[in-house]
Amino acid sequence: MSHYTPPLQDMQFVLSELADLHEIAALPGYGEATPDLARAVLEEAGVFASEVIAPLNHSGDVEGVRLEGGQPRMPAGWAQAYARFVEAGWPALSAPEAQGGQNLPGVLAAAVEEMWNSGSVAFGLLSLLSRGAVNVMRHAGSSELQQRYLPRMVSGEWTGTMVLTEPQAGSDLSAVRTRATRVADGSYRLHGTKIFITYGDHDLVPNVVHLVLARVEGAPAGTKGISLFAVPKVLVNDDGSLGERNDVRAVSIERKLGLHATPTCVMAFGDGAGAVGYLVGEENRGLEYMFIMMNSARFAVGLEGIGLAERAYQKARAYARERVQGVEQGGETGAKVAIIRHPDVRRMLLSMKSRIEAMRALASVMAASMDQAALNPDPEVRDAHQAFVELMMPIAKGWFTETGLDIASMGIQVHGGVGFIEETGAAQYLRDARITTIYEGTTGIQAMDLVGRKIGRDGGRAIRAVIVRMRQVQADLESHAQAELCAIGAQLNKGIGDLEAAVESLVKSWEGGPKPALAGSGPFLELLGIVAAGWQMGRAALAADRLLASDPGSDFLTNKILTCRFYADHVLSKSAGLRHAIVSGSGATLEFSDAAF
Amino acid sequence: MSHYTPPLQDMQFVLSELADLHEIAALPGYGEATPDLARAVLEEAGVFASEVIAPLNHSGDVEGVRLEGGQPRMPAGWAQAYARFVEAGWPALSAPEAQGGQNLPGVLAAAVEEMWNSGSVAFGLLSLLSRGAVNVMRHAGSSELQQRYLPRMVSGEWTGTMVLTEPQAGSDLSAVRTRATRVADGSYRLHGTKIFITYGDHDLVPNVVHLVLARVEGAPAGTKGISLFAVPKVLVNDDGSLGERNDVRAVSIERKLGLHATPTCVMAFGDGAGAVGYLVGEENRGLEYMFIMMNSARFAVGLEGIGLAERAYQKARAYARERVQGVEQGGETGAKVAIIRHPDVRRMLLSMKSRIEAMRALASVMAASMDQAALNPDPEVRDAHQAFVELMMPIAKGWFTETGLDIASMGIQVHGGVGFIEETGAAQYLRDARITTIYEGTTGIQAMDLVGRKIGRDGGRAIRAVIVRMRQVQADLESHAQAELCAIGAQLNKGIGDLEAAVESLVKSWEGGPKPALAGSGPFLELLGIVAAGWQMGRAALAADRLLASDPGSDFLTNKILTCRFYADHVLSKSAGLRHAIVSGSGATLEFSDAAF
Repeated sequence: MSHYTPPLQDMQFVLSELADLHEIAALPGYGEATPDLARAVLEEAGVFASEVIAPLNHSGDVEGVRLEGGQPRMPAGWAQAYARFVEAGWPALSAPEAQGGQNLPGVLAAAVEEMWNSGSVAFGLLSLLSRGAVNVMRHAGSSELQQRYLPRMVSGEWTGTMVLTEPQAGSDLSAVRTRATRVADGSYRLHGTKIFITYGDHDLVPNVVHLVLARVEGAPAGTKGISLFAVPKVLVNDDGSLGERNDVRAVSIERKLGLHATPTCVMAFGDGAGAVGYLVGEENRGLEYMFIMMNSARFAVGLEGIGLAERAYQKARAYARERVQGVEQGGETGAKVAIIRHPDVRRMLLSMKSRIEAMRALASVMAASMDQAALNPDPEVRDAHQAFVELMMPIAKGWFTETGLDIASMGIQVHGGVGFIEETGAAQYLRDARITTIYEGTTGIQAMDLVGRKIGRDGGRAIRAVIVRMRQVQADLESHAQAELCAIGAQLNKGIGDLEAAVESLVKSWEGGPKPALAGSGPFLELLGIVAAGWQMGRAALAADRLLASDPGSDFLTNKILTCRFYADHVLSKSAGLRHAIVSGSGATLEFSDAAF
Repeated sequence: MSHYTPPLQDMQFVLSELADLHEIAALPGYGEATPDLARAVLEEAGVFASEVIAPLNHSGDVEGVRLEGGQPRMPAGWAQAYARFVEAGWPALSAPEAQGGQNLPGVLAAAVEEMWNSGSVAFGLLSLLSRGAVNVMRHAGSSELQQRYLPRMVSGEWTGTMVLTEPQAGSDLSAVRTRATRVADGSYRLHGTKIFITYGDHDLVPNVVHLVLARVEGAPAGTKGISLFAVPKVLVNDDGSLGERNDVRAVSIERKLGLHATPTCVMAFGDGAGAVGYLVGEENRGLEYMFIMMNSARFAVGLEGIGLAERAYQKARAYARERVQGVEQGGETGAKVAIIRHPDVRRMLLSMKSRIEAMRALASVMAASMDQAALNPDPEVRDAHQAFVELMMPIAKGWFTETGLDIASMGIQVHGGVGFIEETGAAQYLRDARITTIYEGTTGIQAMDLVGRKIGRDGGRAIRAVIVRMRQVQADLESHAQAELCAIGAQLNKGIGDLEAAVESLVKSWEGGPKPALAGSGPFLELLGIVAAGWQMGRAALAADRLLASDPGSDFLTNKILTCRFYADHVLSKSAGLRHAIVSGSGATLEFSDAAF
């Protein structure tokens, strides 16, 4: 169907110039992450993504998943591809060596994950969820649980799930009702129905380990009474062999707008005697553990936004180069040209491209900060990076996915009528992208987290520290000799100014109660996303300019500066409107009568 | 599935306060369009849309259209509904009495069409295309063609199509290759394959009259050699009875992202001896005639954007009122509330609602101008209205549909995870909306038409005349005693200022060649849409305030002012960013190297 070309040059540029891979490689344990190794890993992942995963994306969408006798069956070719994925060691890329992993930095893994998502989000989701489950087990699981389950989850031989949602408990997990009863051997029996369980069951591996939120009988109401359990699809004997089938099964598969190759299951726990579950960590701390998983999943879903957008962009670009229609505007001859020559098509393509590169840059910088926050020997440095990551997490989840959704839709637009035909494949990217702004916490939930927990409650301290870093880049740009860089700096200046005004307004209004600030939280998430990514594009322009001195003929570098300029003029320029909506736009939202909607 | 409630109160408000229905009723021949009749027509149409059409939308999407032995078969229930539609006289609502119509003003018909689209765009498309075909036949068809075909096309007993596109000729109709050969009896024989023919064939009526673009042998190359032909599915005998099947057939039906209940056909003309066609008007003037159809179709597709958006909004609103999740932010109790209480959900709903009302207002004002342009006794008044309509047509087609698409997507977002499940029905609105920005001329084509033909070539005269009218409303708002109205006026002032600056920049740059202006055409279309609709929202706020004096307890009027205020703060506020993109953003777009995309 559509070809995928890994954007290796841009990834290398971002890793070395913006995410400071050499500093990550200097962290304890990451010494092997040399530029050469990084290059080799990216190239190999690119080959796997483009040759093994990408060809499954459209066929998987067309064929979909079927429930046969209670067992979800994956589309043709998926089992072979997943087996190769495990065999090549990809699931364990960033896991510690002690657990069979390759211990590569997260910043490198993030670039690799973008490629899986460009290949197929439906495919990438399986390892995304398993990694999250592995993180929780590693952090909170007992050593017995770890020994029995972790090695095969790390390797990808078994997969993991994240079992939260119930019909009445979606964004609000305090409403979870699934019950867990402790039995004599120290294990629990679970009873309850869960919905929207991604890869809840499938036939790619012999066992699936569910991490399930449930209430132990007698637990406090609300979020303080929720515990986390590991519930395997198949029970594991003491010798590690697979035993009996547990009392958990997929009762139906949702018919969804997109991600047709992903089994999204309604799961019944304990239809019979109860599903055997093992407590993870301590009772009533389930939500805390789940947030470990949720945070890594939120970042990973942000990478889905980028990966999908890149694939949609590449498809639109290929079509725009090949489709001949109309003559060159203002051209001398009446010769027909490819539509990439038409100014508005170029604008759409650059709008896609510039935002993808801006997101990739910010995602890499965030991933590098996660590595620093985990491993830097200096606790102050760790804390500063951790504060940055926590502040920006809603942007990765919320803004990357909203932007990816818009880019996927624009990809259809570039195709014209052909884009509306399913066979073309462009429509699938929009259908698939449509869930990314919803699952693992909607954009609205991210915006609430951002404005409430990350800004309102800390009085804006964390974000002001980031703004100081932005201002430095802006000053470097504005004092630059090149006009293009000055122009980018001028837009960044306006953007930062709007961000500052919005932050001060939110911090002040928060003191009087959360509502006015929350009424502006959606626009604020977009504003911070635009400006933070614009800051990285400013850094990219400076780096490209610097590198041009020694490589003056580089097309990549010359056009990188134009991409940054485009971003500044077409994306950063939205900041003034968003600032106004945040500062002045909450009155009508809150005053409007419920009945008058 | 989902219920549809016709927005009669807002439609009445718009017709009487903004579109000046009383002035339309004073036009020659429209004397019967009294407020009472208008109300009765809207109410009846509302009943038909909600009770007959709306229930078919989801079932039609699920069942889709099948090609059986060369005949497209519509989903269950559609034939009965269409028969009732014809029986009730709805297709002939605005046709002249002499042709069996009811001669009601276009401004009223536009409101009615919005309701058909809210009911089901897939259903509404059939009469949309037929009306366009009727307009062309009425304007350019010979009296013999008119006598033989028009009455049954007007009544809806037969339907019409618009047959333009070929694989190599999409947006660029100069590339049309379908051949027409004149034969002895004065008719023609057509040979060629056409694609993307909406309702190209179906089983709702006994005959389909295709209006087909083709080249007579020996005609000049390019657009100047294209003629228009009426090609019936079934030939019509001299006595009006149906004769032989013509040599035209649907060879396949496209599998599309949306509009599953609309047969989008690949049509073969003249696989055998040639399809019998009758020249419409004169040879080589086909494109000119087709533009009559295209203009009415473009406006009608804009109404699809509004109708779809209204339905998506209503569904999201119903869900937000019913879905209980989380507690009131900043509330005293820990009681769970419906999500309509959450500030960001309210913001999304108001973003949808305010833009729908803004579009409806602008569409009605445009429709009223079309009535004036056709019937006002004063030629200067007619010309002024015609200039306004031509200027704004790209906004109706381009901006209404882009906005409708965004609103349909937002409707899914309000639903959270449930919105991604097809059974819910919210996803269908996005799938259906996705074609509206493409067919009848993509948004890019509209933007090119707007910046090139409507502004660049006339040096900005038409738009400056509209800006004068906008300025008057802004002055009335800013000098108003009510703070809400002043605030709306202040935002409108900024919006108009940004529009003026953008126009002057485009007009100036146009003189040096079209490319820089066209590189800004997409943002300019959005800017004009936002400001023009904001102008109408300003008028709406003034009218609501005026009416409140005699009806001080009106919830509708009080909340209308809040809706206008929301629009000013959240939508009009985008103008500064768009202005910057237009004035300063074309450089990177044009300089970027083709190879570097």
